[in-house]
This record gives sequence, C-alpha cells and structure tokens, in this order.
Amino acid sequence: MDSKKKVTPAMFIGVRGEGIISFGSGQPDLPPPKAVYDILPEYSGFRYGLIQGQENLREALAKQYPRSTADSFVITNGASEALDLALRAIAWLHMKKGGGKPKCLLCRPYYYSYLPLVEYAGFEPVFTDLKEGRIVYEDFEKKVIDCTAVLINSPSNPTGRVEAIETLQAIEKITEEHGVYVLSDEVYKDLIYVRENYLIKGPHVVTINSFSKTFAMTGLRVGYLWSLDKELVKMVIEMKSHTSMNTSIIAQEMAYTATTVPKHYIDEQLKIWESRRDMIYTGMVALGLDLWKPEGAFYVLPKIEQPRDFVWDMFHDYKVITYLGEWFGAPDRVRFSYALDVDKIEEGLSRVKQYLQKRKK
Amino acid sequence: MDSKKKVTPAMFIGVRGEGIISFGSGQPDLPPPKAVYDILPEYSGFRYGLIQGQENLREALAKQYPRSTADSFVITNGASEALDLALRAIAWLHMKKGGGKPKCLLCRPYYYSYLPLVEYAGFEPVFTDLKEGRIVYEDFEKKVIDCTAVLINSPSNPTGRVEAIETLQAIEKITEEHGVYVLSDEVYKDLIYVRENYLIKGPHVVTINSFSKTFAMTGLRVGYLWSLDKELVKMVIEMKSHTSMNTSIIAQEMAYTATTVPKHYIDEQLKIWESRRDMIYTGMVALGLDLWKPEGAFYVLPKIEQPRDFVWDMFHDYKVITYLGEWFGAPDRVRFSYALDVDKIEEGLSRVKQYLQKRKK
Repeated sequence: MDSKKKVTPAMFIGVRGEGIISFGSGQPDLPPPKAVYDILPEYSGFRYGLIQGQENLREALAKQYPRSTADSFVITNGASEALDLALRAIAWLHMKKGGGKPKCLLCRPYYYSYLPLVEYAGFEPVFTDLKEGRIVYEDFEKKVIDCTAVLINSPSNPTGRVEAIETLQAIEKITEEHGVYVLSDEVYKDLIYVRENYLIKGPHVVTINSFSKTFAMTGLRVGYLWSLDKELVKMVIEMKSHTSMNTSIIAQEMAYTATTVPKHYIDEQLKIWESRRDMIYTGMVALGLDLWKPEGAFYVLPKIEQPRDFVWDMFHDYKVITYLGEWFGAPDRVRFSYALDVDKIEEGLSRVKQYLQKRKK
Repeated sequence: MDSKKKVTPAMFIGVRGEGIISFGSGQPDLPPPKAVYDILPEYSGFRYGLIQGQENLREALAKQYPRSTADSFVITNGASEALDLALRAIAWLHMKKGGGKPKCLLCRPYYYSYLPLVEYAGFEPVFTDLKEGRIVYEDFEKKVIDCTAVLINSPSNPTGRVEAIETLQAIEKITEEHGVYVLSDEVYKDLIYVRENYLIKGPHVVTINSFSKTFAMTGLRVGYLWSLDKELVKMVIEMKSHTSMNTSIIAQEMAYTATTVPKHYIDEQLKIWESRRDMIYTGMVALGLDLWKPEGAFYVLPKIEQPRDFVWDMFHDYKVITYLGEWFGAPDRVRFSYALDVDKIEEGLSRVKQYLQKRKK
C-alpha cells in the first residue's frame, strides 16, 4: 500500500482549492504590510541591478546587524538561494584549496531542503540527532570538528524549538577553533515566543534570512545572506553573477519598503502566531498526540503511526495537506504548519480527529 | 602593467554614472512595453507560486512552441537560472546513473557565464573553436559524441553570428543519435536580422529563453526553459523546489502581460536594433577594426591589440565600459554591446577613436 501512496513536497507547494485545509507549506496567510504595495503604481524599473543587491536594501539591513556595512550582505531569491549559493561557494572554495569531498553537519530533524541542497553542492552529509527537538552538544561537538560546514536552524523548522543561548555560544567557540563554516538559517528570527533572537557570531558564520516569514512575502522571493567572511561573500557574488544575476529588482524594492515598516507590525504578528500556537498545541495534546511545544516558527511535529498512510489519506479523503516527517529526517512524525486562521486550524484538527478515530476501529 | 589592470564582469554589471558610456552588459536601453506596468496598481499577490511557474504564463508560452503544453516549461530567475538548473540536473541524473565526470562541449568564443556554469555543475568543459564566429561542424561532430551535453547559442553572444540552418539540423541528428543533451540558448531569438529563428528539435533538447532581451525586462529576471524530455523537466522542478522555489510571482505576472503585447512591438524593436547594428559595424570598419558583421543579438567582437590595457584605460580614462574578450574565450578581442542610443554609440566610437590614435603615437 505504501508504495502507491507516494507524496512529495513539490506536489503540494502552491496548491490551493475549495475546501482544502493546508497544514503544508510554511506560508503566512496574512498579507504583507500595505506599504509594500504602495510603491507599485509608480514603479518603472527594468534594468539589471547590482548582483549583490540594491544598495538601499542592503544599507537598511546593515542597520539591523552589528559591525556590518552594506558590503556584508547579498540579496537572493529567497533564503533558499542564499543557502544554495552559500553551500556551493563553500564547497567550491574548499575544492579550489585542494580539499577532498567536504562534509556538512545537519541537525536531524532538518528542514527538508537541507539534505538535497547539501548533496547538490557536493557535500557528504553527516547527522547529529536532536533530542526533544534540540541539539545534544556532546554529539554535535564530536562530529562538527571533522566537517567543513554545519547548518544550524533556530527557531527550527520542523521542530519549532529554539536552542539555548549556551548551546549557540558553545557552537560559536568550537566552530571558530576548528575553522568550520556555520550556516545559521534564522528565517524565523522574528517569530520566537520565548526570548529575543540570539545572532550567532564568528569569522566564518553565514546568517541566512528572508522577508518571507516576517513580512508574509513568500511568493515574492527576497532573502539574503549576511557574513563578515569577505572571501566567501565575494565568491557568492561571483557565483550569483552567473547562476541568476540580480534578484528581481521590483521584489527588492518591495522588501526595502518592508524594512521601513514600524516594529509594531512584527509585534502584532507575533501575538497572532502565539495564539495559533496555543490552539494547535492544546488541540493536539487533547487528541492524545505526542509532540513538542513550539517555542518559535509555526510548526508542530507530532508522532503519528503509519505516517505515509496518514498524509495520503488526510489529503485524498479529508482534503487536509500535511507533510511527511520522513522528508525532514523524522520518519515517525508528521509536520503541521499552523500558518492558518484559527477557524481553519480548528476545522483541520477536527478532520484529523475523525480520521484517527476511524483508524482505531 | 597587466596584473594591476584586473577587471571582471561583476565590476561593471549594474554600474551607471554621469558621462559613462557602457558598451558593457547586454541590456536594452528602451523600456519594456507599457502594458507590463499596467498590472501593478492592482497587484496584491504574496503567496508561494507553483515551483514550475505560473500557469497563465506557461500556457501562453505553450502556444509559441510546437508540440508543447504548459508542462514542458519551467519559469526561472532569468535565462541564467534556467541554464544553471538544466546543467545541474543533467549532471545529477548522469551521476545517479553511475556515470563518471560528465563532459560539456562549448563553442568558443562563448557567453562568459557558460564556462563557470559548466564547471560549477561538475562538468569537464570541452571546446570547439568557431571560425568567423560560426561552428565548424567537422570539429563539433568529432568532439560532441564523447560529451553528455553541449551548449549552443545562436544568435551568439558575443559573436553576433547566426548558425546556418543546415548546421543546426546536422547537430540535431548527431546529438539525437548519441543521446547528447542539447542546451540551446535562444535568448536572442527575436533579434535576428537575417532570417526567422530556427528552433532546434530533439528528445533531449532544452531550449533556454527569457523575457530580458525581447521585452527589455533584464532586471525583473524572468526566463524559462522548454523541453520535451520529461525526466529532465521533473528533475529541474525538484531541484528548483530546494534551490530557489518559485520565480518571483510579481515578475512572472509582468512577463505574462508581455506575452499579450502585439507582435508589432517586436518588429519595431528589431528595426531599431538593425540601425544600431549598421552604425556600429560601419563605424568600426571605418576605424580599421577587424570584426564580423552581426546577424543577430546586439554585440560586436572586434580584434583589439593589448585588450586588457584597452578595457582598463577606456574605463578609467574615457569612461567607456567594454568587456574583455578573454572572458568569452577570445583573448585577442573586446566585446561591445550596442544596446545604446545612436548618439551614445557615436560618442563612444569617437572616444575609442581618440584612444586608438593616442596609442599609435
């Protein structure tokens, strides 16, 4: 039965329809700040932009990051391209210096794109298993020292967990000592329920970020990377000049406008996310599911028996999209994004309940 | 002296300034059709789009290509990303089938991104030298049969030449016989002065195209690939779901609008390009330069003595941007894009004349 029930993320991304409730892609349902669209009626750009990104946008970002200038940023087609380019540039520099096949450490469960991105870029993946959704430092330390790069993601998609500041500081120390590149994917930095974001520091740290989650601009595709490693930033720009050139200038101008929106906007959003988090967490506990309480981002990753059947049947019989835990390296779990209106979360949970009750019989 | 005079394309892309005349990047100076901006005041999209690209855009394209449906297209961040993804997907499929390091044939001089893209994707580049800017089929045939892929570019950037239809048909035949992937970069298909474009056919042909040149939308970054090779299209979509996700939805909507513009627009553009072509070609012949007459696209590639000094000095002393032939595999030449107003072409040529006269003394 399993073999027929083949589902992939690409099947679900961008899929919408009557009656479908999607706990699938990590897509805010609320629109971006209105100001983002205010520039459009007068917009007339069409020429190539700088490969590194528009200056106004990079200068606005430089104010948000310590010890940085506009030169420390590269604007990309979403965080995805920032990750892809950073990994490719690291692997390329490693090879040019005569290194063998590089290794990249992944914290498992991981965001489903990490494994293919690491492999496409030519790395051998190495895994450290999270415990209760968080890094076990002893295992991490043992493995990271043999790696060229490591990918950190706090708050984590899919676990919803936030790493302890002490863990992040220990990671800064060990990776700096061993010259390991740290890719810190912080796209959920503004969606943390438990504390302020902690920005990882270090000479070979690459911070990945985006306008997609904070400002609900997923489809517009504006992300960026930030690094004080000049050699790496230069290599990323050189690569991007061939692989995609500038990020769409109109989307960059919209992202720039988002940086001018008062912080109040983000605080309001966070309250909404927190109430949704409470609802889905409480609801799932009531269904008897085993899951971690999210501290950031907008995902839960409950244990589900026969998860392939669950994801297939929920989609085909109940019009509910969920993502298979095995895509994230968590084969006994299913990921739910709660980037949904509370009414839809409630309806979705009720359909899950029906299915689970039917299954028991 | 040469070692100090280090110039790279990334130094010039997007660079504009008072008094600078840029024969650098291939950037139409005339704006896109007005209709492209008419959608903006009402635009409100923000959600993820389909990874493969918006349906309206792919359906419009399907009407322009024989035997195709919307499924044969993937919309990308410009032709650059289409090339990058196609090369990576071909190399990936080749490796998964147990192949060794794949080879890719390049026709030299080539567009300057081809060599890095081929190398980044893990291919060993193989070269066939053009004669008078066109393929020498005997040499091409001998080399292509040992390659996994070949890159064709007619009209060519940087030579401005258009391949004979007989040559393209012979390439179709030999590559189909030997199962070689053909990447046909046809971004200048609507800018041919000598005949209609000839679309290469074959089961493993990937046609690369873009809205950048035809509709002057370079900075907006919308390109696409078209192929009847379903396995390859599927792999490209899978890769793109990780490396950049959908192409910016607002830029895609603008590109869709461009497809609705009457063909009249393209015909008018072509007349303008042809008059510029005549002016720069005649002007350079009058300067005693050795060059090929362009049959398409908007580049000339004259022979220039001490080309590194020329490019450096023209930029620093005469505010004229030109591109070094060695970036294109043509070390004794310099590339000029004539995507400029005739007044600027005239002024630029006059500065070149001054410099060359001064140099003679």
